[in-house]
Amino acid sequence: MQFVRQKNIYLIRFEDEEAFPERFQELLAAESIGGGSFTGIGALMRSRIAFFDTEAREYQDIELDEQLEVLALVGNVAVYEQAPLVHAHAMLGRRDGTALGGHLRRATVRPTLEVFLHVVSDPLRRTLDPKYGLPALDLKHEHS
Amino acid sequence: MQFVRQKNIYLIRFEDEEAFPERFQELLAAESIGGGSFTGIGALMRSRIAFFDTEAREYQDIELDEQLEVLALVGNVAVYEQAPLVHAHAMLGRRDGTALGGHLRRATVRPTLEVFLHVVSDPLRRTLDPKYGLPALDLKHEHS
Amino acid sequence: MQFVRQKNIYLIRFEDEEAFPERFQELLAAESIGGGSFTGIGALMRSRIAFFDTEAREYQDIELDEQLEVLALVGNVAVYEQAPLVHAHAMLGRRDGTALGGHLRRATVRPTLEVFLHVVSDPLRRTLDPKYGLPALDLKHEHS
Repeated sequence: MQFVRQKNIYLIRFEDEEAFPERFQELLAAESIGGGSFTGIGALMRSRIAFFDTEAREYQDIELDEQLEVLALVGNVAVYEQAPLVHAHAMLGRRDGTALGGHLRRATVRPTLEVFLHVVSDPLRRTLDPKYGLPALDLKHEHS
Repeated sequence: MQFVRQKNIYLIRFEDEEAFPERFQELLAAESIGGGSFTGIGALMRSRIAFFDTEAREYQDIELDEQLEVLALVGNVAVYEQAPLVHAHAMLGRRDGTALGGHLRRATVRPTLEVFLHVVSDPLRRTLDPKYGLPALDLKHEHS
Repeated sequence: MQFVRQKNIYLIRFEDEEAFPERFQELLAAESIGGGSFTGIGALMRSRIAFFDTEAREYQDIELDEQLEVLALVGNVAVYEQAPLVHAHAMLGRRDGTALGGHLRRATVRPTLEVFLHVVSDPLRRTLDPKYGLPALDLKHEHS
């Protein structure tokens, strides 16, 4: 992983065979980043995406053991249970151009993943949503 | 809907069963936001997407009455006919991981939709493009 | 092409029949932009997308000679061989709502493509990655 900070922007390059979001979490912890939003592009050699089943209240995982373009990585960072949590969705493209995607649980980069993270000055927070059992963005007490 | 503003960034969470973009338009009006760009992720229980037919000069709607992940919501805000107009495209993901998408006309959130809006200080404007009959971004007189 | 700058944000509208990324490269050169990140939406009448084959170490192109919605355009700008290089991925939508996408090599806009470019103050750089033969983001010597 390589990165550079310019004011409130982090430009990050995840390198060949690195694990996402583990490496990202490391950066967030090291830089004490508690809130932000990101986009990215690149490619992955392996991915686990998921669809949230609102009735079963659980994610259904799909394993993708193939090289895929990251057509768009979109997500955000917020603090949940005292640590920064990455919430990322990925759109992925196959060799024939067809697209698929979901909630990105984990992935292995190949050859590169370029992420542009816009950090905010005050941390964002997630709390458990009892209805769905999900860590939901909790912005209620933070109007400013 | 919950939101927090940090400088020129609005972090917005649309909640279960809320209507998009109606709730978003309410926020834009209440906060007098006339220009910006946004990205978002989440999920929807119902959506109406559209494809613009350039020969017929009209949108062709597709109704999606199913739970879908919002893999990426990308769009912008500009003033058209004296009110802020949301222009949004959505990439959506099915339970089996396949993706679809279009111009997002309306949707009902389930369970959450997290949007990161970057506002600009001077309003953006749309005017009717006579060739296609669309409200087009009009940036001609605004070089600065 | 129309554009307006507001602080570190460029709002750009590529117009009917304009070539992407050629017009974009012109703007970057004229404005001396050496680094940034962008998102966009719109539609294209023709596109060439590509999938990078990591074993053959080359892009495999797919020609799309049809009108498609740009569901999401995501990418960045960095200097490679003394000129700003656009790295863009596109998610595209068909009339029936199905999605496809890849590395966007070139496209012709119809009727419009709206791009929001966030520039950074110090240029970003790409250098050739010898393993894959690709111009990779080189952020190693730029921690700040």
